[in-house]
Amino acid sequence: MAENSSISIRRARRDDVGVIVTMLADDPLGRARERLEHPLPQSYLHAFEALAKAPHIQLVVAEDGEGAVVGCLQLCILPGLSSQGASRGLIEDVRVATHCRSRGIGERLVRWAIAEARARGCRLVELFTHNTRVDAQRFYARLGFQPSHVGMTLRF
Amino acid sequence: MAENSSISIRRARRDDVGVIVTMLADDPLGRARERLEHPLPQSYLHAFEALAKAPHIQLVVAEDGEGAVVGCLQLCILPGLSSQGASRGLIEDVRVATHCRSRGIGERLVRWAIAEARARGCRLVELFTHNTRVDAQRFYARLGFQPSHVGMTLRF
Repeated sequence: MAENSSISIRRARRDDVGVIVTMLADDPLGRARERLEHPLPQSYLHAFEALAKAPHIQLVVAEDGEGAVVGCLQLCILPGLSSQGASRGLIEDVRVATHCRSRGIGERLVRWAIAEARARGCRLVELFTHNTRVDAQRFYARLGFQPSHVGMTLRF
Repeated sequence: MAENSSISIRRARRDDVGVIVTMLADDPLGRARERLEHPLPQSYLHAFEALAKAPHIQLVVAEDGEGAVVGCLQLCILPGLSSQGASRGLIEDVRVATHCRSRGIGERLVRWAIAEARARGCRLVELFTHNTRVDAQRFYARLGFQPSHVGMTLRF
């Protein structure tokens, strides 16, 4: 069983992609969007290669004491002119494995991202949560996030 | 007077930074966040250097027929594993000079960003608009964006 104290956070590796996609697919929104097949569709591995080459993006996983991957998060550092030229950290794709929820793993991941964004000079972190993810919104509010913006999307 | 038809979109140059910051500062939210001083605070120029070096980010300006900068937009292409490894385009810092509003310049900029994101393989574009920017939300809805997400932010 994964306890918060035994969780470590490390960069995702190519052989983590299957577990990450399993977590991404494991909710009603994700199920409709992902293709959890064996072998995994190549598009996921191509995306991983792009992420691995992107110096401004870190895809990390939470690993429990036995080395099992139980969570993930992607952090992108975005320079920009607004707010006096402040960089911002964009947090995406936060997931915790279903059987490991409510143990503080998501909080560990998000606090890691906040600390990392600060360390890289950001003055703001931001994220999108789907309107229907009310629990997630409560979780982020507890960590100090404000529901200050409308997140608008256009899918092709 | 800038007409939509005479607008061209090009990469921002270092000597555009002052005009861009003037547009960023020219509304109640921006006024509180920016420092529109002469000379411009170095932090803006440092941020511009970071942007110019970032292959995944394009800061563009809209230029009218006389070569005046009348709008800006930043587009970031973000790879990611979710949605079957689809990249997404993040649109930020969309502004049109006050005296040039309601002439379709913002629409030209956003349509440019949508086309560019598509051309770079994105399957989604996304953006944050502040809760108070009701006119902006209506504008994006007209261009096909859905208010599907809550945009949450944490400032340090």
